[in-house]
Amino acid sequence: MSQTTIGVIGGGQLARMMYAPATKLGIELHLLAEGPDVGAARIFKHVTVGDYTDQATVRAFAADCQIITFDHEHVPTWILRDLVHDGKLVRPGPGALQHAQDKLLMRRRLTDSLDAPAPKWRACADADELAAFGAEIGFPIIAKASRGGYDGHGVWKLDSPSDTGIPFAEALAESAGEKVEIIGEEFIDFVRELSVIVVRSPSGQAVAYPVSETIQREGVCRETITPAPGLSEDQATQITKLGLDIADELQVTGVLAVELMQRADGSVVVNELAMRPHNTGHWTIDGAHTSQFENHLRAVLDLPLGDPRMRDRWCVMVNVLGGTNEDLPSELLHCFARDPRLRVEFYGKQIRPGRKVGHVNCYGDDLDQVRARAKHAAHYLMGDIRKG
Amino acid sequence: MSQTTIGVIGGGQLARMMYAPATKLGIELHLLAEGPDVGAARIFKHVTVGDYTDQATVRAFAADCQIITFDHEHVPTWILRDLVHDGKLVRPGPGALQHAQDKLLMRRRLTDSLDAPAPKWRACADADELAAFGAEIGFPIIAKASRGGYDGHGVWKLDSPSDTGIPFAEALAESAGEKVEIIGEEFIDFVRELSVIVVRSPSGQAVAYPVSETIQREGVCRETITPAPGLSEDQATQITKLGLDIADELQVTGVLAVELMQRADGSVVVNELAMRPHNTGHWTIDGAHTSQFENHLRAVLDLPLGDPRMRDRWCVMVNVLGGTNEDLPSELLHCFARDPRLRVEFYGKQIRPGRKVGHVNCYGDDLDQVRARAKHAAHYLMGDIRKG
Repeated sequence: MSQTTIGVIGGGQLARMMYAPATKLGIELHLLAEGPDVGAARIFKHVTVGDYTDQATVRAFAADCQIITFDHEHVPTWILRDLVHDGKLVRPGPGALQHAQDKLLMRRRLTDSLDAPAPKWRACADADELAAFGAEIGFPIIAKASRGGYDGHGVWKLDSPSDTGIPFAEALAESAGEKVEIIGEEFIDFVRELSVIVVRSPSGQAVAYPVSETIQREGVCRETITPAPGLSEDQATQITKLGLDIADELQVTGVLAVELMQRADGSVVVNELAMRPHNTGHWTIDGAHTSQFENHLRAVLDLPLGDPRMRDRWCVMVNVLGGTNEDLPSELLHCFARDPRLRVEFYGKQIRPGRKVGHVNCYGDDLDQVRARAKHAAHYLMGDIRKG
Repeated sequence: MSQTTIGVIGGGQLARMMYAPATKLGIELHLLAEGPDVGAARIFKHVTVGDYTDQATVRAFAADCQIITFDHEHVPTWILRDLVHDGKLVRPGPGALQHAQDKLLMRRRLTDSLDAPAPKWRACADADELAAFGAEIGFPIIAKASRGGYDGHGVWKLDSPSDTGIPFAEALAESAGEKVEIIGEEFIDFVRELSVIVVRSPSGQAVAYPVSETIQREGVCRETITPAPGLSEDQATQITKLGLDIADELQVTGVLAVELMQRADGSVVVNELAMRPHNTGHWTIDGAHTSQFENHLRAVLDLPLGDPRMRDRWCVMVNVLGGTNEDLPSELLHCFARDPRLRVEFYGKQIRPGRKVGHVNCYGDDLDQVRARAKHAAHYLMGDIRKG
C-alpha cells in the first residue's frame, strides 16, 4: 500500500471524523493531539501528544508525514512557514490559512481583492476609534477580536459608545497579553444564517456543496438544513460562486467553509471563514455522495474530488450538546427503536454542559418530518426529553 | 461516554470495517490480531497480537472487554464456551457459531430442524462411502471438508469413483493430522449464486437485506448485484424467510450470511453459512441505509437494528484482488477522475496475487451503467487495464 502519511494537527471531532475516510482510502493518518483523551486521540492508532504552538514538537511530529493538515486554525503561521521551508506539504498552506486565523486580514483581503459582500467594517486601535465608528454608522455595532475567537467567543454586540472599552479589555485578558486587534462591524439585522462548503485541490479543481441554512444559538451551531429552504436558484448560484471565488483567491487546499448572514431582502454578507471540515458540513457524511471529510482528504492528496451533490431531497443535522445524559451510547436504545434511519455520530468527548459531543443526521423527502426526527433524537440524547 | 468495550477476534478486513461504525456509536473496539501488520491492526488503537487458538491468550484479551465478537469463525468452540462460563457475552455464541464452523453440523441441523432446501448430502467416513454415495445419486458429486474451508479451499468436485480418495488425503494434510469429516453433496447445476444477509439481536429482533446475486470465480466472490436481477417477489420472500428462520433456529447474534445456489427452475438450496459481516454484504456500506457492519455492532450491543433497505435502485460491489499494482491509493487518480461517485475501500493488506485487497461500490438507477462503472474501477485497480 501507499507510503503516504498525513499528519493532522488537533485532536477534536474534525480530526476524528477524517479517520474513517482515510482508512477507506488506505492512507495512514497521524495525530498531534492536545492530550491523550481528546476525541480523535481515543481512536487514532498513531498519536503524539504535544503542544502545537511549540515548533520543536510540530517539527518532530511532521518528520514522519509527507503532508500536514488541520483540525483547527490555531497553529502559529511562522511554524507552518518553517515547515514549508523544510519541504513539507502543508495543506491548506500558511498563506491561505492566515485568513481563517485573522479576521482583519480576511476582511481586508476579501474587500480589496474580491469586493466580497461584507458588513461595513473598520480596524479600530482603541475604544475611541470604535466609538467613532459606531457614531458614524449607528449603534448597535459588532466588535470582533481579530484572532482567537470560536463558537461566539471574541464577538461582542455593543449598544452604545460607553460599551466600546469592553472588547479591548476582554480580548487583552483572553490573549494573555498578546496584542489583539479589534474590528468594528456593522450590526447586520439578518433573517437567517447560511453556509457554503467548498473544497479545492492544489491543482485547482473545486467542488461546492449545496448551500445550507444554519441555526446558531449563543454563537454555537445547533442545526443545519440542506439545501437552504426558499433560496432562489440565482441566490444559490451567487453564494456558490462567492465560495469558489474565495477558495481560488486565497488558494485554499481542502475544505473552505464560508458562513454568511442573509438580510430580509435576500442579500448576503460574509461573516466568517474556516479552512477545515466544518460543523455546517457534517450533514455531508450521510446526505451527500462524498462527505466533506473524504473530499478534504482527497484535496489534501491532490486526488480528484468526489461528487458533492445530495443523495436525498433534504438533509438535516442537529448537534448533540452535553446535557444531563452521561452515557450517550446507552441512550441510543430509544432513538434507534423510534427511527431506524437515524444516523448518529458521537465524538468520544467527556460530557460537559453545552459542549458539542455529537450530531445526528436525518434525510428524506419531507422537510418537516426530517427536521422533527433529527430534533427529537438530538434533544433526547441531550436529556431535554425526560424518560417517562 | 459508555464503558462498553467490544473485543473483536481476528484482524482482517471485516474487523477493519467495523471500526468506523463503532467510532460513530462511541463504542471502543479492541482487536486480537494474528500479527501487527494485518489490515485491522493497522488502524485499531487497541491491538493485542496473539494466537486465537490459545486459551490463555484469548482469556487475557477478553479480560478488558464486556462483549466478544468475530472477524472469522475459527476460534475453537471450547475456548468460547469457557469464555461464556467466565461471564463474557460472546456474540454470536458458541452454540450458534459452530454451525458456521462445521458444515456437517450445519447440514444436519438445517435438514432436521428446518427442512431447509439443501443438495442431497451424506457424511462419509472414507473413500468407499463417498464412492457409494456418488454411485447412488450419480457423478459428478461435490465433497466438502466439514471444517477449515474458505474461499474454495476444502471443496472438491469429483467426476468418478476413482477421485473419492482425494478429499480425505488433502483434508487430512491440511488439518495437520486432526480428523476432518467429509460430506458428500449432490452436484447442483446452478445457474447463479445468491446471498441473503440477515442480522439478529439477542432480544430476537431481526432484519434482512435485499437478496444479492453473487458472482464467484474459483471459489472467490468477485461481484455482487443487489437486488438480484429477475428474482420474483415470491422467491425473494422465500429466501428472506429462509435466512430469518435459520437465524432464529440457530439463535444467531449479529450478521448471518446465507449463500445459496439457484437452479434453472428458480429453486434454491443452501450452500454455506457465515456468522459475521460477509463479503456479499459490502455493498451495504454505500448502498443501504444502515451497513452490515453497523447493524452487526448494534446487534452485538442489543441495540435496535437500523433500516436494511437500499438507498438507490441498484448497488454493485466488485472486489479488488491483488494484481500488478503495488500502490493502490495512487491508482485512484484515474478512477476518481473518471467517476466522481465511485466508492472505494482498501483493506490495508499487502498485495499478493488473487488476494482480496479492497472493493468498490457503485449505485444508481441503470444496472448496466452501474456494473460497468464498478467493473472498470476494480479492473483498473487490479492492473488488468493497462495505462498509456
